[in-house]
Amino acid sequence: MRVKVAIGLRPGVLDPEAVAIERSLKGLGFPDVANVKRQKIIELDVGAPDREAALTAARAMCEKLLANPVIESYTIDIA
Amino acid sequence: MRVKVAIGLRPGVLDPEAVAIERSLKGLGFPDVANVKRQKIIELDVGAPDREAALTAARAMCEKLLANPVIESYTIDIA
Repeated sequence: MRVKVAIGLRPGVLDPEAVAIERSLKGLGFPDVANVKRQKIIELDVGAPDREAALTAARAMCEKLLANPVIESYTIDIA
Repeated sequence: MRVKVAIGLRPGVLDPEAVAIERSLKGLGFPDVANVKRQKIIELDVGAPDREAALTAARAMCEKLLANPVIESYTIDIA
């Protein structure tokens, strides 16, 4: 099954890279850019007998490796 | 206008981080993981009079900063 995980910073957590992107864009001639947010998308094939098993496995992958639960939150879609 | 840019590696370009994720997941007890793909999502507010202007600006931002046209391709959604 194809699993898609979207990982982003939790609200309130500063994203220095997003701040740098915003500043750079303004310096490159895009003055009215604001509110830059970033997300990571990780897609992968997961061998699982059904959607529930794929979701359970994907959650465990997020908790163990893909997301940092302290500063990141994630959503999981099963294709 | 809210612009959402999805940036991924072009087909055929090796993604060492995706390879590392796959290997790590297998080492963490997820043997049947395969075909890991990564994408970056950048969302931002763009001051533009209409959708066409926002799309043009977003394309220019991608070409100048957000994406590396040599190894990356991108899609743009205007909310």
